[in-house]
Amino acid sequence: MVSEHMVKLGMNRNIMREIFEHGKRRAKVVGAGNVLDFSLGNPSVPPPAKVNDTIRAVLDGPLHDSVHAYTSAPGDQGCRDAIAASLTHRFGVFCTGDELYLTVGAAAALCCCLFGLHTPGDEFIVIVPYFTEYRVFIESAGAKAVEVPAAPGTFDLDLAAIEAAIGPNTKGILINSPNNPAGVVYPAATIRGLADLLRRKSSEFGNPIYLISDEPYREVVYDGVEVPWLPAYYENTLVCYSYSKCLSLPGERIGYVLVPQSAEDWARVYAAVAGAGRGIGYINAPSLFQHVAAACDGLTADLSVYETNRNRLYRGLTEMGYTCVKPDGTFYLIFQAPDLDSMAFSKRAMKYDLLVAPTDTFGCPGYLRVAFCVDTGRVEKALPVFRRLAQEYGLCK
Amino acid sequence: MVSEHMVKLGMNRNIMREIFEHGKRRAKVVGAGNVLDFSLGNPSVPPPAKVNDTIRAVLDGPLHDSVHAYTSAPGDQGCRDAIAASLTHRFGVFCTGDELYLTVGAAAALCCCLFGLHTPGDEFIVIVPYFTEYRVFIESAGAKAVEVPAAPGTFDLDLAAIEAAIGPNTKGILINSPNNPAGVVYPAATIRGLADLLRRKSSEFGNPIYLISDEPYREVVYDGVEVPWLPAYYENTLVCYSYSKCLSLPGERIGYVLVPQSAEDWARVYAAVAGAGRGIGYINAPSLFQHVAAACDGLTADLSVYETNRNRLYRGLTEMGYTCVKPDGTFYLIFQAPDLDSMAFSKRAMKYDLLVAPTDTFGCPGYLRVAFCVDTGRVEKALPVFRRLAQEYGLCK
Repeated sequence: MVSEHMVKLGMNRNIMREIFEHGKRRAKVVGAGNVLDFSLGNPSVPPPAKVNDTIRAVLDGPLHDSVHAYTSAPGDQGCRDAIAASLTHRFGVFCTGDELYLTVGAAAALCCCLFGLHTPGDEFIVIVPYFTEYRVFIESAGAKAVEVPAAPGTFDLDLAAIEAAIGPNTKGILINSPNNPAGVVYPAATIRGLADLLRRKSSEFGNPIYLISDEPYREVVYDGVEVPWLPAYYENTLVCYSYSKCLSLPGERIGYVLVPQSAEDWARVYAAVAGAGRGIGYINAPSLFQHVAAACDGLTADLSVYETNRNRLYRGLTEMGYTCVKPDGTFYLIFQAPDLDSMAFSKRAMKYDLLVAPTDTFGCPGYLRVAFCVDTGRVEKALPVFRRLAQEYGLCK
Repeated sequence: MVSEHMVKLGMNRNIMREIFEHGKRRAKVVGAGNVLDFSLGNPSVPPPAKVNDTIRAVLDGPLHDSVHAYTSAPGDQGCRDAIAASLTHRFGVFCTGDELYLTVGAAAALCCCLFGLHTPGDEFIVIVPYFTEYRVFIESAGAKAVEVPAAPGTFDLDLAAIEAAIGPNTKGILINSPNNPAGVVYPAATIRGLADLLRRKSSEFGNPIYLISDEPYREVVYDGVEVPWLPAYYENTLVCYSYSKCLSLPGERIGYVLVPQSAEDWARVYAAVAGAGRGIGYINAPSLFQHVAAACDGLTADLSVYETNRNRLYRGLTEMGYTCVKPDGTFYLIFQAPDLDSMAFSKRAMKYDLLVAPTDTFGCPGYLRVAFCVDTGRVEKALPVFRRLAQEYGLCK
């Protein structure tokens, strides 16, 4: 009677959400401070002061009433121009406000790209492990998700495997760097290799293969790691960005798609993205937060707690004998389940009220994801529990 | 290479937008004050003070940082409960926060309903004239729009015509009262008749026929007209609401779907709506404005200027000999093109910098829509131009 597919999407929360809800129930029994919840990627640090200051300034300034009006569908021209100027300054590739389409966050940005690009029979490559909703969005657009595993151990892109997966139906490849859940940042050399590969395959099949880059963690990086700016490497790139993680405002839903003018048939690609936004009900990005984005592009919340947690967790877990992937960025760390049974590990940890998510729904069983966007006290409290589990698994004494 | 359908949606703005853009170009030549623009339904009055006051209070209160975090997908429970309590109080039908799914405006609400309900082969009935995007959303969801004309002259629902259009593939009917563009409010007797019809047909075909009610103009009514609260009349109703028009904040994108518990198979219908939201990238409604909606439900901006304009225009145009539909609500008035050629009238009016939109893209040629959400000075300036056009058409001397 109604869409079975949508009922399932509505009823089956992803496993991180399930674990998170379990944590909330446990908190009522044992107290919130005793639930060591590392399930969700909800930023734990407050937004930079400039976020609320910008809101106040707009409400107290000449725009106080008109700021809530419709903007043009791609976003307010002044806001787009300001963001474009900031991106040009930060990444050294000239871009204009006309190449930006402001969106209701990165999920909307991805949907606009996928619905806009998709023609019947299309495939989009995703790199395993991948954020679970990629498959949801690709399938909603009517396309097929083709999984390609990341390089074992490093979780870098495996260019040979990607090459093998590209066929005449490949419309695009969706990458995510810094990567959720592996924390890896693809280095410039990898991106250069990917660009060469995509150019070669585009010309082999006579159609551009689009590189859709989901970058909500762009600024959440450690040890000065550089995240390559993809339009400098590959012309047919669509950058999907969200201000959620860097500015700690994931509830406000503000982001963009950048379709660089270098893209083949630019005007049509941009129109397809905008048309998809219109087609699925995205009238314009929330108008007040367009101004916040324009004022705050390039800023971040104080991310030092994430860095402290990442260092503490990586060193601690490695010393206990866990096999960890050292995160270059994001606030996630994955480690291997000692017996490769991540569901069992997650359940066993739950007995100690330690909540970590198995990465099975990321297409990659055998690992656990620790979302360390929490206060450091929780990390300190969790480490002895991790040790106890390591002992139970015989990793250490 | 990309979706032709989406490229077209992205490139072809609707005619109101085209006329509006023409007006902006003319404003640079003749001055903004001399362009008599009645093209767009962008509220012209400021939001009630409580909108910005609520924002300031939230930013200065204990939620100042956490308000920007993710909420649960259907919306913050406290906000949903507050809105439900307000709806219960206002309309006398008990509802709870669990029946509400907060959305990124009414367009998102409609898309969530259409994508959520749709199964292959489904048809949705729309009443001509209808807001142009209904067809876009229905087709994006993969369903078919079936047009049924409103009753001639009154623009009330034509129940016999609706009955004739209902078949085994009818999944729902989408109505809009107060109606854009006709301004009509369907009276309780009509709604009672519709409910009887839908019940009878649902049981004939063995499947519920959903009544999807798009109600962004609910509070924008005149002369004390009552807008029936549909869940009181028909169990399988989905109310799609937006705070855009009553609170003058269309850019902020905040609204809801109400799936009343009376709906058959309620949990699955609600899950389908929520699943559709997830499937097309709506993570949660913008979080700060969830609080604004909760605080301001039932409030309106000062709508008196719309009432003044409506009275002035209806009386003026009628006296000049135009055939007008008297608006019960909304800030739109439609009148017949004297020779039934609305495109020609719109063009001729443009020569005097009077911008009114032909209703052809609403599925209803022969009429012009006057969006009178403008200051009354513009109405006063426009009346002589309307008179001159009436003279040219031989309606009056």
